[in-house]
Amino acid sequence: MKNYKAKIYITLRENILDVQGKAVEHALHSLEFNNFSDVRIGKYVELIVLAQNDGQAEEMVKSACDKLIANPIIEDYTVEIIE
Amino acid sequence: MKNYKAKIYITLRENILDVQGKAVEHALHSLEFNNFSDVRIGKYVELIVLAQNDGQAEEMVKSACDKLIANPIIEDYTVEIIE
Repeated sequence: MKNYKAKIYITLRENILDVQGKAVEHALHSLEFNNFSDVRIGKYVELIVLAQNDGQAEEMVKSACDKLIANPIIEDYTVEIIE
Repeated sequence: MKNYKAKIYITLRENILDVQGKAVEHALHSLEFNNFSDVRIGKYVELIVLAQNDGQAEEMVKSACDKLIANPIIEDYTVEIIE
């Protein structure tokens, strides 16, 4: 068994309105950052997982994402495993 | 001028207690994901920025992070610019 680091990028699905992103975009424009658009805000999770190999680590992390870390109804996620 | 996509990864600084991460870690353990540890939760921001080149795009995004998107007192961030 070995420790693997996992990086998880969670984004709202394309067709879901990102209210928080819109708020940040308006705030940017009011600070005269007018060249910014399409702001979308997601989550970035780092964790350590103990597994036999990187395949098993990825499987465990995906299972945890489906059950707890992400909300598969409105969010997509990408998992990256690092030794 | 050209549109660049920016990906921003925002993490709490190492020495700041991540209460949300601890809560998720406990929840994982109670769902019998016992092999998970060191859960840290940050933000992942995607946006489009109009700039003359990727160097200028990166500079603008970093400036926006310092002023609004991240909290430099408790957070670190990494910026990635994609054409």
